[in-house]
Amino acid sequence: MTQKLKVAVIMGSDSDIPVVSQAIERLKSFGIPVEAHVMSAHRTPERAMAFAAAAYDNGFGVIIAAAGKAAHLAGVLAANTTMPVIGIPIKSSTLDGLDSLLSTVQMPSGVPVATVAIDGAENAAILAAQILALGDPELGEKLKAMKREMEAAVIEKDKKLSKSI
Amino acid sequence: MTQKLKVAVIMGSDSDIPVVSQAIERLKSFGIPVEAHVMSAHRTPERAMAFAAAAYDNGFGVIIAAAGKAAHLAGVLAANTTMPVIGIPIKSSTLDGLDSLLSTVQMPSGVPVATVAIDGAENAAILAAQILALGDPELGEKLKAMKREMEAAVIEKDKKLSKSI
Amino acid sequence: MTQKLKVAVIMGSDSDIPVVSQAIERLKSFGIPVEAHVMSAHRTPERAMAFAAAAYDNGFGVIIAAAGKAAHLAGVLAANTTMPVIGIPIKSSTLDGLDSLLSTVQMPSGVPVATVAIDGAENAAILAAQILALGDPELGEKLKAMKREMEAAVIEKDKKLSKSI
Amino acid sequence: MTQKLKVAVIMGSDSDIPVVSQAIERLKSFGIPVEAHVMSAHRTPERAMAFAAAAYDNGFGVIIAAAGKAAHLAGVLAANTTMPVIGIPIKSSTLDGLDSLLSTVQMPSGVPVATVAIDGAENAAILAAQILALGDPELGEKLKAMKREMEAAVIEKDKKLSKSI
Amino acid sequence: MTQKLKVAVIMGSDSDIPVVSQAIERLKSFGIPVEAHVMSAHRTPERAMAFAAAAYDNGFGVIIAAAGKAAHLAGVLAANTTMPVIGIPIKSSTLDGLDSLLSTVQMPSGVPVATVAIDGAENAAILAAQILALGDPELGEKLKAMKREMEAAVIEKDKKLSKSI
Amino acid sequence: MTQKLKVAVIMGSDSDIPVVSQAIERLKSFGIPVEAHVMSAHRTPERAMAFAAAAYDNGFGVIIAAAGKAAHLAGVLAANTTMPVIGIPIKSSTLDGLDSLLSTVQMPSGVPVATVAIDGAENAAILAAQILALGDPELGEKLKAMKREMEAAVIEKDKKLSKSI
Amino acid sequence: MTQKLKVAVIMGSDSDIPVVSQAIERLKSFGIPVEAHVMSAHRTPERAMAFAAAAYDNGFGVIIAAAGKAAHLAGVLAANTTMPVIGIPIKSSTLDGLDSLLSTVQMPSGVPVATVAIDGAENAAILAAQILALGDPELGEKLKAMKREMEAAVIEKDKKLSKSI
Amino acid sequence: MTQKLKVAVIMGSDSDIPVVSQAIERLKSFGIPVEAHVMSAHRTPERAMAFAAAAYDNGFGVIIAAAGKAAHLAGVLAANTTMPVIGIPIKSSTLDGLDSLLSTVQMPSGVPVATVAIDGAENAAILAAQILALGDPELGEKLKAMKREMEAAVIEKDKKLSKSI
Repeated sequence: MTQKLKVAVIMGSDSDIPVVSQAIERLKSFGIPVEAHVMSAHRTPERAMAFAAAAYDNGFGVIIAAAGKAAHLAGVLAANTTMPVIGIPIKSSTLDGLDSLLSTVQMPSGVPVATVAIDGAENAAILAAQILALGDPELGEKLKAMKREMEAAVIEKDKKLSKSI
Repeated sequence: MTQKLKVAVIMGSDSDIPVVSQAIERLKSFGIPVEAHVMSAHRTPERAMAFAAAAYDNGFGVIIAAAGKAAHLAGVLAANTTMPVIGIPIKSSTLDGLDSLLSTVQMPSGVPVATVAIDGAENAAILAAQILALGDPELGEKLKAMKREMEAAVIEKDKKLSKSI
Repeated sequence: MTQKLKVAVIMGSDSDIPVVSQAIERLKSFGIPVEAHVMSAHRTPERAMAFAAAAYDNGFGVIIAAAGKAAHLAGVLAANTTMPVIGIPIKSSTLDGLDSLLSTVQMPSGVPVATVAIDGAENAAILAAQILALGDPELGEKLKAMKREMEAAVIEKDKKLSKSI
Repeated sequence: MTQKLKVAVIMGSDSDIPVVSQAIERLKSFGIPVEAHVMSAHRTPERAMAFAAAAYDNGFGVIIAAAGKAAHLAGVLAANTTMPVIGIPIKSSTLDGLDSLLSTVQMPSGVPVATVAIDGAENAAILAAQILALGDPELGEKLKAMKREMEAAVIEKDKKLSKSI
Repeated sequence: MTQKLKVAVIMGSDSDIPVVSQAIERLKSFGIPVEAHVMSAHRTPERAMAFAAAAYDNGFGVIIAAAGKAAHLAGVLAANTTMPVIGIPIKSSTLDGLDSLLSTVQMPSGVPVATVAIDGAENAAILAAQILALGDPELGEKLKAMKREMEAAVIEKDKKLSKSI
Repeated sequence: MTQKLKVAVIMGSDSDIPVVSQAIERLKSFGIPVEAHVMSAHRTPERAMAFAAAAYDNGFGVIIAAAGKAAHLAGVLAANTTMPVIGIPIKSSTLDGLDSLLSTVQMPSGVPVATVAIDGAENAAILAAQILALGDPELGEKLKAMKREMEAAVIEKDKKLSKSI
Repeated sequence: MTQKLKVAVIMGSDSDIPVVSQAIERLKSFGIPVEAHVMSAHRTPERAMAFAAAAYDNGFGVIIAAAGKAAHLAGVLAANTTMPVIGIPIKSSTLDGLDSLLSTVQMPSGVPVATVAIDGAENAAILAAQILALGDPELGEKLKAMKREMEAAVIEKDKKLSKSI
Repeated sequence: MTQKLKVAVIMGSDSDIPVVSQAIERLKSFGIPVEAHVMSAHRTPERAMAFAAAAYDNGFGVIIAAAGKAAHLAGVLAANTTMPVIGIPIKSSTLDGLDSLLSTVQMPSGVPVATVAIDGAENAAILAAQILALGDPELGEKLKAMKREMEAAVIEKDKKLSKSI
């Protein structure tokens, strides 16, 4: 694997930025080069498909796609690449995110989307990093460090709680 | 409108034939020219998009799309045409059809899919006929006749029931 | 098809106006003549049925019906016409719109309702325009223009996003 | 109240007979005069509405309505009478009865439907009997007897079980 | 039927008052004598059962029961009387009312609860009035008047809307 | 705690025996004295309440209650004792067990039901044993042995699988 | 049973404190010694498992575990002890608590979690007290007193309501 | 990346073999070395955790985990590694797979599980291959070939269908 494959973060609408920016920040915190786009499976389908088809040759290793409602974006991208595609179902104003979850995860055989939790942007970034880390030991160390920090943070909170009770 | 616009019936998998064939039969019963295809939003996305983009010029007036699970087919077709697209959510082996319903109906603003009931293939055909009948008074008469027949059939069943009780 | 068929926008309650007015605005933006009514499947059933039964003769080509909870309005109208009826399920204070979606879309064979997303008023208008455009090439051009504008708007947002990251 | 008000049992389709016949049998067991019909909210809406509008004058005290999917039948009947209307949501081949339950029970203010369990035909009959018993003390005694029998049957089963363990 | 049977309105918690008071007001508007209680299926089960068991002898014709979450109140009351029991499922802070709806409506054979919509207090009152009106022609006239008023109100709103567009 | 507190296994209907008998068998396998009853929250409410109220004095330490649909049985028992009550939601012919799960678990503050999985009869027995084992070290050893056996069984299956691939 | 077994209250995140503190307060009100911790099934799995494995020897009789989303905490703890584990599903920002409920309650055979209502912290505490009371008659008396107080509070509210209507 | 990282396929129960074997076959078809195990998050938690913790050092690049009901297996494995973990929710006898889907996908921040469709074993294998292909161009070619074959198969079915209509 060449070093420093990029991660593409595609969102279906700029209204998804508040959630999706968590993925971008997390990727940057790992030193992973990231490129973000607004592309719509339904409004700019050709651009989305062309992006996915060319992504590997353009230096991307993973695509993260975030969309709400009948969330087809991740599926459309996955249909046009053999690269791993991670889907973030976005909660919108009705149905509490169930529609976007099912639209993202229930993909037919042959075209998987690696789905994370509803609004789970940070986990999408971490999953992308885990995938890239298979070819990037330094990134692997950063993930282990993050895990230790998470653990330490929980332990710290536990101590604080114990005192307060 | 030119007379005799065709209806395209697209299904995501040939396993959908038992359900979808009800739509084809119903369309034929109205004398509507119909063309059926297996096309997948995920396995043959380019063919699906190209079909939709050219459909109007190829003499189609309505596209019916049937798919299960994360049912993106109708949405992908609708993204590539301004023709009416009717979606049939297909029930598959898990979640009782809820996933395909939500994936088909919850489309974002700008790209509607006219969704019928889960496995509602016959209604998809009738809806297509209703749309075409706006420009085809003869077809309109057939729809009215069908409605009268349905009514008569219910009345007949009512009589039979009354006798049996 | 005669030119300039009208679209009827029927809502079950005046509390639906904030959502449904998006459909009215969109229809007007296409230059489609629109007539809006408050009619209830349950409180004014005869008026609703009479309206649907006479709608075609009164110059309508499509009926859009919006209702919440056990949303029967679109179904009642569809039962009394062979014209295309589009249903907008309205989210109300409980169950997050699931009840109105299922009550609108799960119609029995013979009486389809072309259902759009929960609160999807704008898409109902676009779907109506798509149906009417089969007999109105000028309207068809407007739909294509709208699609290009949507596409351009996404591309514009994409550019803005790229700069901000 | 005049004695011996009749109960109307209306089903949306003759495919509902296996479930609905339990209601008819139970009503007969109470000696309540019963009339059964197949009437559809969507296929014979005028007949359904006319039936409801005239039901009280025709000697009915309660209407029981059974329907599946987007089950509008009970609501349509209730819209055309001020008589109590009991709704039986019927489970159909998709969504496990949730659609018919919500379509039946989530009625808007002003037009109640007294909803029983999915496929709960026997309870619809008992509820009708409870309503009529307010004006029919003899029927009230039958209901009390039925309740005692149910109780005795459970106690009998309890005894049998105790022995078997 | 003796004239002027009372209606009991039982709620599981005083936090239900804002919803349930709509039922009380509506009953009073019909001139129906009403008695309201806070009784809990789980906290005061014996009082609830004793109330139901004696209700008919105490002059009640219908019991309305409102409860949230695992809403057993209506069922517990229904288990102890052969009088009609109407259940109002109350939406609480989780699950959007689905839990109380299912807990109220899915009663086993033999013990029906006449269930209305989630938070449907007004309809519970109207249903109670419809039941009592079978033995009270004057009340029946009030219900018909209410129906006409509802109809007129919708027509009025329709006129207002037509002007505003 | 006196030794050998009994466990009561109450089911709402004898149709629940196939599922519930797994609880009885498991309890017997631990040497826990068990008494099984058919009692209904709705058909024999007084017997159910009296049983619960007297259960502790009659030598019971835990009550297990199994019921389907609007499953009130566990809640009614819990309302009449301060003893731990374990609820088994039973899947019935509609709604796939969701109704009984919510009716059992969503209890209001003050009256908990310790709910296990839908049709989770064996776990209800194990939970009862875990509760009783706090006062019965020998039973605690049996639970640890069961846990070791479960672990060994999984390891055994793992070995078998490894060979077969 | 030794006297005064402790109850451990474990939460997956310190954001759960507002809900979970109700359990802690209730346990203290019973005079039950309580220890609270923040431990995560996913961020500090070893600590969680070690805690559960040693809990009985460290003087605990019951573990209460609260977690949201894919709530594994209670299950992970239950996997490492034969002590009763009570699970509180916490409602988080999407899916209204359904995910945490199902993740907590649907445990496989062999490893039960005694699940209470979504956000049902107080009931978790009462259930823990009910379990401990089997070996602590004084605690049993406190539970009975609490039940009487609850009953009295409802009766008080009933009186207040009666006056206000 | 070293060549030929292995994929671990872990299932919670040997009853999952019929579904999970599709993943194993697909992985083998790509020439990916695969190791399959039965390990339970609840019955053999220590083995599961130890396996995950050592997996990378033991030559694994991806872990696939399949489990039903409150499906914690993938989450427990993910908690103990920074390697990508793919979750397959397995449909069991109740709730139609919704419980396992939510238990697998709704992971908290920091510990992602790459979730595929319910019973989506083949897609789990393809996703694993896509991940490994980032460091294995030959595998990448196989994925492209598979995509072309899928496409060709759909086209073939399309031809067959066209002929039959």
